[in-house]
Amino acid sequence: MPNREADIRIQNGWVITGNAGGDILENGGVVIRQGRIAAVGTMADLRSRQAKETIDATGCVIMPGLVNAHTHLPMSLFRGLADDLPLMTWLNDYIFPAEAVHITPETVRTGALLSCAEMLLSGTTTCCDGYFYEDAVAEAIFETGIRAVAGQGVIDYPAPGVPDPSQNIAEAVSFVEKWAGRTPLITPSIFCHSPYTCSRETLVKAADEAFARGVLFQIHVAETKSEHDQMMMEHGVSPIRYLDSIGILRPQTLLVHAIWIDEEDRNIIAERGAGVAHNPESNMKLASGIAPIPELIRQGVAVGLGTDGCASNNNLDLFEEMDFAAKLHKVNHMDPTILDAAKVLHMATRGGADAIGMGSAIGSLEEGRPADVIVVDMQKPHLVPMYHPVSHMVYAARGSDVRDVIVNGKILVKDGRLLTIDLEKLFEKVAEAGRSMMRK
Amino acid sequence: MPNREADIRIQNGWVITGNAGGDILENGGVVIRQGRIAAVGTMADLRSRQAKETIDATGCVIMPGLVNAHTHLPMSLFRGLADDLPLMTWLNDYIFPAEAVHITPETVRTGALLSCAEMLLSGTTTCCDGYFYEDAVAEAIFETGIRAVAGQGVIDYPAPGVPDPSQNIAEAVSFVEKWAGRTPLITPSIFCHSPYTCSRETLVKAADEAFARGVLFQIHVAETKSEHDQMMMEHGVSPIRYLDSIGILRPQTLLVHAIWIDEEDRNIIAERGAGVAHNPESNMKLASGIAPIPELIRQGVAVGLGTDGCASNNNLDLFEEMDFAAKLHKVNHMDPTILDAAKVLHMATRGGADAIGMGSAIGSLEEGRPADVIVVDMQKPHLVPMYHPVSHMVYAARGSDVRDVIVNGKILVKDGRLLTIDLEKLFEKVAEAGRSMMRK
Repeated sequence: MPNREADIRIQNGWVITGNAGGDILENGGVVIRQGRIAAVGTMADLRSRQAKETIDATGCVIMPGLVNAHTHLPMSLFRGLADDLPLMTWLNDYIFPAEAVHITPETVRTGALLSCAEMLLSGTTTCCDGYFYEDAVAEAIFETGIRAVAGQGVIDYPAPGVPDPSQNIAEAVSFVEKWAGRTPLITPSIFCHSPYTCSRETLVKAADEAFARGVLFQIHVAETKSEHDQMMMEHGVSPIRYLDSIGILRPQTLLVHAIWIDEEDRNIIAERGAGVAHNPESNMKLASGIAPIPELIRQGVAVGLGTDGCASNNNLDLFEEMDFAAKLHKVNHMDPTILDAAKVLHMATRGGADAIGMGSAIGSLEEGRPADVIVVDMQKPHLVPMYHPVSHMVYAARGSDVRDVIVNGKILVKDGRLLTIDLEKLFEKVAEAGRSMMRK
Repeated sequence: MPNREADIRIQNGWVITGNAGGDILENGGVVIRQGRIAAVGTMADLRSRQAKETIDATGCVIMPGLVNAHTHLPMSLFRGLADDLPLMTWLNDYIFPAEAVHITPETVRTGALLSCAEMLLSGTTTCCDGYFYEDAVAEAIFETGIRAVAGQGVIDYPAPGVPDPSQNIAEAVSFVEKWAGRTPLITPSIFCHSPYTCSRETLVKAADEAFARGVLFQIHVAETKSEHDQMMMEHGVSPIRYLDSIGILRPQTLLVHAIWIDEEDRNIIAERGAGVAHNPESNMKLASGIAPIPELIRQGVAVGLGTDGCASNNNLDLFEEMDFAAKLHKVNHMDPTILDAAKVLHMATRGGADAIGMGSAIGSLEEGRPADVIVVDMQKPHLVPMYHPVSHMVYAARGSDVRDVIVNGKILVKDGRLLTIDLEKLFEKVAEAGRSMMRK
């Protein structure tokens, strides 16, 4: 008989399984073996399961790690650089110039490390990224141990690392080829910036390359009214119908934002099986609008929750993002029942996994799945009493309540301390980058 | 020469003064003597100021303690008891029955202690409360050392501690008389529940008693569309015009919510000098609507930020509330410039102080004022780099980033640890109350 001893047993907590039945166990645990979940159950169920290491979760919630369905990791260096501005002023006068001057493989690495540190400490175990110099981003991600879909950006303008736009797709393809199958933790992807910054030819070619390689194709779409109006003028149809007309909406496509969409657009998204990344805080802060998320979910679309980059949020805390999502749609529809806590938590876990093409692997605590697990400490004044753990996750908890984080069976955060990144050293590099940004 | 040595010197931090000029000092500090601010300045300014105790704020922000302009402290015991329900189902099937059975002086005390613990740990130094058994609430507040306006509830129905509604005003008056002048930290007040649960006679009499005693008169008003419609039907005017017609709108009046108000209502509020408490998270969660806050501020109305009670939020974190306020109005107006970070921070400090009648004492760091000061630790992955401290306070920080809290010159939180409350003992009582709530 082979050695069946497990590696880690997390015990004595409330378990939010996130399985199809929505099971919640009052006094339970999770057993991890060789990077995967070997068992989930009540403590009675797990009595006989021994492990090399035990994590006591008394007074804690044990749940699937959160999935950030949309972000731009290196942009943490632009956190709070410019707020409260019209979108085009913000982009053209602050973000684009800052990117042009300050984005190098080294700053990209620093910003990505910082974002991964923030995400891990606040319970995110998987993120879906898109940026330039994505190779440096992927190296940083790999170092931290977080799980990620990493997308090399494609845009028809000179971009950091891609001064000649005619090379943008070749760069993306070479990034995908370099990272495909290299580590189970990083899945490469291609990220076209938007239908208004990429030509039809670029969109079709980039998407074809992604589809041919079986990787996720990401695109910002229908984010602002002006984008919508521009597409109507140029193509005579909505942004979604335009993308559909060129064959880009597939189950392997992630539509980011999807705010300015009508009923027909929603039907098309649902029929094609494309996923959607919802970023309520960024959409509110930039005054872009409110995406019809309850409607998309009702139609069976896989919807994930994203923070967007730090320049428009300004943090990567998915607990906060859940709270925003849950409350925003209620007031928007004047209906407090429209998007309940369970649906929102699903969006931040399994929904996001489905949207980024990883639903068969992550987003729930079930036997056989990779062990991406977090432990949230509920013994805090703002988390007691607790009647319903799911309610607390969405409406009361903060990222800072996360105590332990496990990705692929490896403990990355223990007792609130990050094990894979030297924060002191990182903060020095961040401060240096920040000072240089202030000098222009 | 008398002994001029100070008690506490907080040094080496970024100082957000919150003074009329909005001064921010890059390397500064605050000197405290006999409960008051003796000096605010750069470290060069403060060179000669010695103190018995120093608090090093290197890498931190030093700022005025936050002011929670509206809450119901004991309701922390109902945190997450019932969510995602229509307002009337939530109130009539969950909250009112729970209050009828479970609210006693003892549970009120437990819930109030819990709320004060949560508020202090997240940087709130003043709150404006309204509930029943307010005497027990005030005792709990006093024990924790937080500053508060404490309002005894008045409603024309049997209420906890006031089984006979005909005694509701007498109870409130006796509460005010008991607590007036008793401690500089607690200011008593009278809180009429709403224009639809209090008769015209009750409203007029209660307000007169408050005005005659120079204390704040609080009332929930124009919270829901149905309240607005009911007032229109019964009185032929909006809720605000109804209150104005009976002489209730004064500078000593705090209007809570003020969502369903039109331009004429706003003009009346501005002319009468009444204050407004804005509770975006509660208003969103209950799908009540969005108050016209940018408009009220533009008209010069004193607007404070409140969390409301924990049953409809579900926490008391004013940092989160600031983030919600800043983003909600942007998307509501489709204008990212409409309520900038500085205006929102003002709402959570001096604006709130003005709205609850304490603007001459608290809400800013200025010489001679009572020393209500917080130190926020910025050396965290989600708070670096920092270009603009005010932006970080509103968009990136969480209550858990607060490190030290001083109220009236007394240190209540040090290095994230609460000095005045035994949390372990409190959690036992909270758990007991929670269990009893689950048994019904």
